Amino acid sequence: MALPKIVVLGAGYGGLMTTVRLQKELNHHEAEVTLVNLNPYHYVTTKLHEPAAGTLPPDYARVDIASVLKQDKVQFIQDRVTKVDPENKEVSLAEGEPLKYDYLVFGLGSAPETFGIKGLLENAFFIRNLNGVRFIREHMEYMFAKYNALEEKRDDLLTIVVGGAGFTGIEYVGELVDRIPELCQEFDIPREKVRLINVEAAPTVLPGFDQELVDYAVEYLKERGVEFYINTPIEECTDDGVVLKGGEKIDAATVVWTGGVRGNPLLEEAGIETARGRVKVDEYLRVPGYEDFFVVGDSSLIFNDEGRPYPPTAQMATQQGQHLSKNLVSLLRGGSIEPYKFESKGTLASLGRGSAIGIAFGKKVVGSKASFLKRVNDWRWYYMIGGLSLMFKKAKL
Amino acid sequence: MALPKIVVLGAGYGGLMTTVRLQKELNHHEAEVTLVNLNPYHYVTTKLHEPAAGTLPPDYARVDIASVLKQDKVQFIQDRVTKVDPENKEVSLAEGEPLKYDYLVFGLGSAPETFGIKGLLENAFFIRNLNGVRFIREHMEYMFAKYNALEEKRDDLLTIVVGGAGFTGIEYVGELVDRIPELCQEFDIPREKVRLINVEAAPTVLPGFDQELVDYAVEYLKERGVEFYINTPIEECTDDGVVLKGGEKIDAATVVWTGGVRGNPLLEEAGIETARGRVKVDEYLRVPGYEDFFVVGDSSLIFNDEGRPYPPTAQMATQQGQHLSKNLVSLLRGGSIEPYKFESKGTLASLGRGSAIGIAFGKKVVGSKASFLKRVNDWRWYYMIGGLSLMFKKAKL
Repeated sequence: MALPKIVVLGAGYGGLMTTVRLQKELNHHEAEVTLVNLNPYHYVTTKLHEPAAGTLPPDYARVDIASVLKQDKVQFIQDRVTKVDPENKEVSLAEGEPLKYDYLVFGLGSAPETFGIKGLLENAFFIRNLNGVRFIREHMEYMFAKYNALEEKRDDLLTIVVGGAGFTGIEYVGELVDRIPELCQEFDIPREKVRLINVEAAPTVLPGFDQELVDYAVEYLKERGVEFYINTPIEECTDDGVVLKGGEKIDAATVVWTGGVRGNPLLEEAGIETARGRVKVDEYLRVPGYEDFFVVGDSSLIFNDEGRPYPPTAQMATQQGQHLSKNLVSLLRGGSIEPYKFESKGTLASLGRGSAIGIAFGKKVVGSKASFLKRVNDWRWYYMIGGLSLMFKKAKL
Repeated sequence: MALPKIVVLGAGYGGLMTTVRLQKELNHHEAEVTLVNLNPYHYVTTKLHEPAAGTLPPDYARVDIASVLKQDKVQFIQDRVTKVDPENKEVSLAEGEPLKYDYLVFGLGSAPETFGIKGLLENAFFIRNLNGVRFIREHMEYMFAKYNALEEKRDDLLTIVVGGAGFTGIEYVGELVDRIPELCQEFDIPREKVRLINVEAAPTVLPGFDQELVDYAVEYLKERGVEFYINTPIEECTDDGVVLKGGEKIDAATVVWTGGVRGNPLLEEAGIETARGRVKVDEYLRVPGYEDFFVVGDSSLIFNDEGRPYPPTAQMATQQGQHLSKNLVSLLRGGSIEPYKFESKGTLASLGRGSAIGIAFGKKVVGSKASFLKRVNDWRWYYMIGGLSLMFKKAKL
C-alpha cells in the first residue's frame, strides 16, 4: 500500500521547521516526506544582514540540510521548483522528475518588492540569500579597494545607500556602522570620506515599532554617522546611484534595497489569488479551495484581529511550521486539525554587534541587553532545528 | 652655516636602506637628510604577490616609515615627486615647496613595461603597490562572489590569466595555487571550474634560472592545476580577456600583468639618457655627468662582467643603499668613495606557502627548506630597517 506523500517546498524557517517536526513525530511507514530546496543548505534569513555587511562569516547563517535531516524519515531533493499544479497534485522541478503529493507545504521564499521603482531590479543589491549577500559584501570591499587604486578620488565609491528603513534596512545599517571603520582601516580611507545613507519613503523609521525604541535606534545610528532621508521615496535607481523624489541625485556605487518583499511568484503562476504574491490562507494555513495545499512563511498572508496583515517574519514562519506539522500528523492519523493563531513573543531589531532595541517578555529593552537577547534568539533557532550540537557549533562562530 | 642637504626620493629598498644607514652613521649637524615618499609607509615589493593573492594580510608587506626613522636625524615628507631638475639641484613636489639638494638619491619605483601590448595598461592589473594589490585581491574575490550570484554561470569570472612567467609571475601563480581552493570553499565553487593560466612570451619559464629548478617549479605548479602557455606572446588585452598571438582568445575576468618593469619616467623627463627608463649609472651609482645625483633600485642599470644587465632586484637595491650611504658619509667627511659591485647572495622564488626553489649558500634548494629560507630572508629585511622589534612584529603576522 502506498504511503501518503507529504512534499515540503523550501527549507526556510517554515518549511524546515515543518520537516524536522514531522520527522520527529511520525513513525516509520506513516508517510513519505520529501523536502525540496534549491541549495543543499538552509540559510538563516534574519542573519543575512551580517554577512552582507561582512561582520559575520556567511557560514554562521547557513546550516547543511543533510545535517538536520534523518535520512530514513525524510527524502531530500536539491532542485529548483518550476511549477506547482494543485489540480493534478503535482510539483515540477528543473532537473528531476515531477513529484506527486497528497499534502503540499509551500514554503518557498519571497521575492523583492520594488514598488515599481525604475532600475531597482537591475542596479540594486538585495539581502535575499547567501550568494547574494556574499556578492554585496565583496562589492562593497571592492569599491573601497578601488578608491585608493584609482588616481582620481571618486567619492561615490565610498557612498552606500540603503533603501528602506524597515527591519532589515535598520539592522543592515547597524551592521555597516560597525563594519565601515574596519574597512576604512583596512583600505587606508578616512572614515569621514564614507557616506552611509538610509532612505525611506514612509514618514518614519521602523514603521509599527514603539516610538521610544525608534527614537533610540535613530539617535544611536545618527551618532555613528548615518544620514537619514525619511519620507523620501526613491524615484529611480541607476547604475551610479539613486534619484530621490524631487530630483536630488545621490551618486553611490553601492545601493542595497531592503524596502519590502512579496510572495513567491509560483503561487500567482498556479492561478491562485494573491496580494503582492502572498496568499490569504485560511485558519489552517490552507490555500482557499484546497484541503491539501498549505502555505507557510513569507508567501502566506494572515490578518490580526483588527483586520491588518501581520508582517512576514521568521517568528511567524517558525510557529506556522510547528503548528502545521502537528496538524499534518493528526490528519494522517485520522484526527482533527486546529486553527493557527499568531502569538507574538516580542521583536528585537539589532543595531550592530553591540546594541539592539525591541520588546521581550512584554518589556522594552535596548542596548547590550537587547543585543544579548537577540543572540539567544539565534541560538534558539539552531537548537530547534539541530539540537544542542548545532547550537554550540554556531555559537562558537 | 647651512648643512649639506641630502634628499632621498622614494622609500623602497634602495631609498629606505640609504636613509636608515645615514641616520645611523651620521652625527647630528653633519647633514640635513630628507626622505620623500608618496605614502606614509614602505612596502615590501617582493612580498606584494602574497596580499595580491590574498594569502597574507597587506599589513605584513607594509612598514610605517615613521616607525623606522629617527625624527631628529631625518625629515620625512609625504608627497608626490613631480620633477627632478639636476641643473638647478632641485626637486619639485605635488603639494609642498620645491626641495634644494646637495646630494640627490633617486630611488623612485619602476613603472610597468608593457612591450607595447595593446590594451594592457587599461585592462590588466599590476602587482605594483599596496593599493594596487588590495584591488587585485578584491577584484578576484568579487568575481568569485559574482559567479554564484548571477543566474547565468559565466566561466570567464573564474578564469585568471597571469601574464609573464618571470620571478613575480611564478611567485604570484604559486600563491594563487594555495588561495584558489580557499576561495572555492568560501564561495561554494567546484575547484575544477577555476582556470589559472600563466602566459609567457619567452621560450621558458623563469628565464635565467637553473633548468633543474625551473623544471621543479613547473612540475609543482602543473600538478596543482596551472596551465602554461609558454612561447606565447599576448597580442592584446581587452576588458574581457586576452588575445594570444595566433588569434586564440582567452575569456578572463582577471588579467594580472607581471611581464616586466621599466625605470621611473621622471628620469627621462629630466633629460637623462635611459634604456627602458633605467639609467646606466657609473660604478659609484651616479648618473653620468653628475657628481651629486645617485640612482638606486629599479631605475638603475648595472652590467655584469659579461656586459649583460643585472635584473632589478630587491637584493641589489638593498646593497646599493648600504653602499651608497657609506659613500655619502665619506663624501660629507671629505673622504673618498668606493665603487659598487653586485654580490649575489643567491635567489629564491617562492611557490606558495609551502614550497620554493632557488640558490642559497651556493647550492640548489627546493621545497619546504627553500620556503623557510625565503621567509628568513623577509625577516632579515625587517631586521635591517627596523631592528629586532620590527622583525618579531612582522614574523607574528
